[in-house]
Amino acid sequence: MLRTHTCGELRLEHVNQEVTLSGWVQRIRDKGGILWIDLRDRYGLTQLILEEGVEAEALLEAARELGREFVVQVHGKVIERLSKNDKIPTGAIEVRVQELKVLNPAKLPPFLIEDETDGGEDLRMKYRYLDLRRAPVRRNLELRHRLMQETRRYLDGLNFIEVETPVLIKSTPEGARDFVVPSRMNPGEFYALPQSPQTFKQLLMVSGFDRYFQIVKCFRDEDLRADRQPEFTQIDCEMSFVTREDILRTFEGLIRHLFSKVKGLDLPELPRMSYQEAMEKYGSDKPDIRFGMEFVELNDVAQGKGFSVFDSAELVVAITAPGCASYTRKQVDELTEFVKKPQIGAKGLVYVRYNEDGSLKSSVDKFYDQEALKTWAETCGAQPGDLILVLAGEKNPTRKALNELRLLMGDRLGLRNRNEYKALWVVDFPLLEWGEEEQRWFAMHHPFTSPWPEDIDKLGTDPRAVRANAYDLVVNGVELGGGSIRIFDRKLQEKMFEVLGFTPEEAKAQFGFLMEAFEYGAPPHGGIAFGFDRLSALFGGADSIRDFIAFPKNNSGRDVMIDSPSPIDEKQLKELNIDLRSGVTHS
Amino acid sequence: MLRTHTCGELRLEHVNQEVTLSGWVQRIRDKGGILWIDLRDRYGLTQLILEEGVEAEALLEAARELGREFVVQVHGKVIERLSKNDKIPTGAIEVRVQELKVLNPAKLPPFLIEDETDGGEDLRMKYRYLDLRRAPVRRNLELRHRLMQETRRYLDGLNFIEVETPVLIKSTPEGARDFVVPSRMNPGEFYALPQSPQTFKQLLMVSGFDRYFQIVKCFRDEDLRADRQPEFTQIDCEMSFVTREDILRTFEGLIRHLFSKVKGLDLPELPRMSYQEAMEKYGSDKPDIRFGMEFVELNDVAQGKGFSVFDSAELVVAITAPGCASYTRKQVDELTEFVKKPQIGAKGLVYVRYNEDGSLKSSVDKFYDQEALKTWAETCGAQPGDLILVLAGEKNPTRKALNELRLLMGDRLGLRNRNEYKALWVVDFPLLEWGEEEQRWFAMHHPFTSPWPEDIDKLGTDPRAVRANAYDLVVNGVELGGGSIRIFDRKLQEKMFEVLGFTPEEAKAQFGFLMEAFEYGAPPHGGIAFGFDRLSALFGGADSIRDFIAFPKNNSGRDVMIDSPSPIDEKQLKELNIDLRSGVTHS
Repeated sequence: MLRTHTCGELRLEHVNQEVTLSGWVQRIRDKGGILWIDLRDRYGLTQLILEEGVEAEALLEAARELGREFVVQVHGKVIERLSKNDKIPTGAIEVRVQELKVLNPAKLPPFLIEDETDGGEDLRMKYRYLDLRRAPVRRNLELRHRLMQETRRYLDGLNFIEVETPVLIKSTPEGARDFVVPSRMNPGEFYALPQSPQTFKQLLMVSGFDRYFQIVKCFRDEDLRADRQPEFTQIDCEMSFVTREDILRTFEGLIRHLFSKVKGLDLPELPRMSYQEAMEKYGSDKPDIRFGMEFVELNDVAQGKGFSVFDSAELVVAITAPGCASYTRKQVDELTEFVKKPQIGAKGLVYVRYNEDGSLKSSVDKFYDQEALKTWAETCGAQPGDLILVLAGEKNPTRKALNELRLLMGDRLGLRNRNEYKALWVVDFPLLEWGEEEQRWFAMHHPFTSPWPEDIDKLGTDPRAVRANAYDLVVNGVELGGGSIRIFDRKLQEKMFEVLGFTPEEAKAQFGFLMEAFEYGAPPHGGIAFGFDRLSALFGGADSIRDFIAFPKNNSGRDVMIDSPSPIDEKQLKELNIDLRSGVTHS
Repeated sequence: MLRTHTCGELRLEHVNQEVTLSGWVQRIRDKGGILWIDLRDRYGLTQLILEEGVEAEALLEAARELGREFVVQVHGKVIERLSKNDKIPTGAIEVRVQELKVLNPAKLPPFLIEDETDGGEDLRMKYRYLDLRRAPVRRNLELRHRLMQETRRYLDGLNFIEVETPVLIKSTPEGARDFVVPSRMNPGEFYALPQSPQTFKQLLMVSGFDRYFQIVKCFRDEDLRADRQPEFTQIDCEMSFVTREDILRTFEGLIRHLFSKVKGLDLPELPRMSYQEAMEKYGSDKPDIRFGMEFVELNDVAQGKGFSVFDSAELVVAITAPGCASYTRKQVDELTEFVKKPQIGAKGLVYVRYNEDGSLKSSVDKFYDQEALKTWAETCGAQPGDLILVLAGEKNPTRKALNELRLLMGDRLGLRNRNEYKALWVVDFPLLEWGEEEQRWFAMHHPFTSPWPEDIDKLGTDPRAVRANAYDLVVNGVELGGGSIRIFDRKLQEKMFEVLGFTPEEAKAQFGFLMEAFEYGAPPHGGIAFGFDRLSALFGGADSIRDFIAFPKNNSGRDVMIDSPSPIDEKQLKELNIDLRSGVTHS
């Protein structure tokens, strides 16, 4: 090796040892005839020292010619530092340089390689390999690595077998848009990249591999929102001969294992909440339960008093913001503006201040006297000093809007602490949701999710009422994973496709292989998949997944570093039996 | 769980316990009022027993209606078997059935789910999920799983970090043909699927991640030979601040770790052999050193005696097949036919029998007397009873042909034992090879491989003589992995592209990002990649990788189980801004 130690390794106990280090020049200080160089590698920083009159002049000269990010190899002796730096693990020592070799010079980097950089997003993406040198980004990838290894260790320990499923598979119209790959050997035909290995993992269950997992790349050709990537990573799992209970316990175990091994946190047993309850109490199927501020329905106490907005509403629902009675008019107006934003969609916001003196002041005093407001406050469990915020309207959009308001208030009140983790299972989702635009039913999870056995009869008569044997794992308001017990009976699977509007021919053409497999001895099975990018970001205390991916793409799906996608030449197109559509040209 | 134990778990110590098992019906025997059922799962087989007069009539009746591959759950009591079966771990017990539940019936499978099946290749591929039920295939995937886990364990233990590199990258004309993916968001542009993460892992080195690995899918759109897959898996590794010696030691360690942990074999230190020596002694850069039969050059002793075939040959070269002097005329003729096959390409074969009585008999007695043949035998180190086989012609094709003959003789003489493993490093490959057809130089490994420093000057003057700092790991004649110390200097990389016939513009358009990265402080680095499918097959003692891949494709690149690739609809094509070429149509 071109080093005897890393730049994060030397301590007082190494004093007087001769060592060789290799790394990047982080910083040079030249003061009073002494030259200090901070040498950096993945493991840390070590201070080098060269002194006029002590070291040879030529060596000092060579050191003075170094620039930031030069790659150098030094040989020298470890000495104790006079003024120690207790902020870094190597801060008690420095290395007196005896030999110095430039392994590779460096141009001045386009932005600072420091924890806080001056580089904008675009520049850092173009020079991603330089951004990855910064300690915060490097630590994110190290965290991701650790999570991967611990995930495998846990699952391997439970006899799960890691099986690689194909990347070149078959395009299916259900679900998101597929990326496709033209086949040269089969003209006019295409592979698709998997959105998930769903059907393959189910086939592995049919094969008798009763515990499968894979940490696997998946692909979706969707318009990219801020925090979506065309390729993403899943922890994909499936088990046979299990009930929902077995799956929840097994993967609750995984999450607790990861928190314990990677964060040193002991997560308590995960509570469970039905989809219904989550919607009623939090207006979201991924409630952030780090804080209360639960929804309270006020229909009973607020309707019938002549306030037509409430009277005509399907739902009147409130949250209580503790200690916010003192909010100024301006602050309350801001909240009103917030809920009226098009993406939130509320018509307005009613508030009730529960003043410290016990009096109540609302924006609807015209319709509600102190007595009435008192009843509201009691219903909400509000205390003097609190602020009650009320929305009204149709059930679903109103809950959705109040969820946003609740999260905003949680942020404002500092109740969403990044270092606190509250996890739960959300269970009993509806099996289907109605697509207004397409005028047909869609699977809320996917078409392979099993309905509750007692609800199967309603598939034909009352699809909305059918509950799915599905579950989501939610941490801090983030959906980390989701899964279900699967259908393993051909007839029920056919029925499901029928409800989803497939003709029998379409169902057979797309998923015939799976339905046929169900006839050759398919065991009861179920599984789950975790968004691994999201999991890494959550463990890293960050909102964006991008900094937890080594080489992410931007919002146009471009890798600006390698400049991809890019045109291909006519010879390639011809071999693939495809043409660009007229009007689309690239040089 | 729908079971208390697996079907591979019960032993004498469980006798009298009540257990629940779930699994597949492997076999039913109904004899003398007693019904035995072999129940199978991933872990083994357990014998169930039901007896007339003991168990209820209804239960017996239900059991008699079971068919092969039915999925059932049984509850019963473990009892000691009267006649034990010591061939299976559960052979000392059986389970007396008290309850029986059919979880899913099964149609009669299209082939036998037994270690030896009656199913042909096509049928087994179409019903791959049934083929995967067979113990030998299942064991292959279990072996693969174990190899993956142990690979990660070893590398993680050495501070290697697993980083996922992108799957949607950029098409480059160098190397094999790319699979491409049309970009919907960037009309007329395409991603490519990676043939390897080569440039990304080098960028990670520039980023300072000094030890990287990944077990990663790679893709090549090449015409498929018997044992190639369009998607395959690599163990991909790279290290910084290392010399070749460091890399060889680190990955020799990996291979020895895998043999030790997975096969229980202690591999000795790996010998090293130069490419030159491998070609001279074995006619192959992946010599099978489980057996000797090394090449011996006979030019000195065989030329100049009037046999024009030898006299005009660049190379006269022999192997000695021990104990084969007694080969019949027919047997020798077969060998001659073999080497004359077009894919072997020799013009003919000369043999010398070294009879037990010390006399020598050759096919060229006309030109060589006993004295002369004796000299051959001495040169070859042959003993009475051996057969000397001689080829002559141009150096490279003659060596290649003799390599094939050597391997054939090794097989015939039982010298290529599947349970014996002999590994070595082949080093010092040529950097370049001449493409006769294209009339240009090609990189033997890839364009990023570093030449030996002392050979760099010859790049412009004598490219053929430039040695690469490259190495292959070869086990039993199979190339398991290969790698090199990389170029990390922009100028040298530019020179390399120039030698390969790139214009500066082409080099910049394709690999500009990498060459630019080299200017910002690239450390010396090198790496290696192992073919993981091949590694698994080798450990499994098999020649074909196909049975070590869960869902392989056939020789036309088709997955016949899911019927992929397949046509996509006009809407998809339009969104992707592509058209099928005229003449290519699919319904």
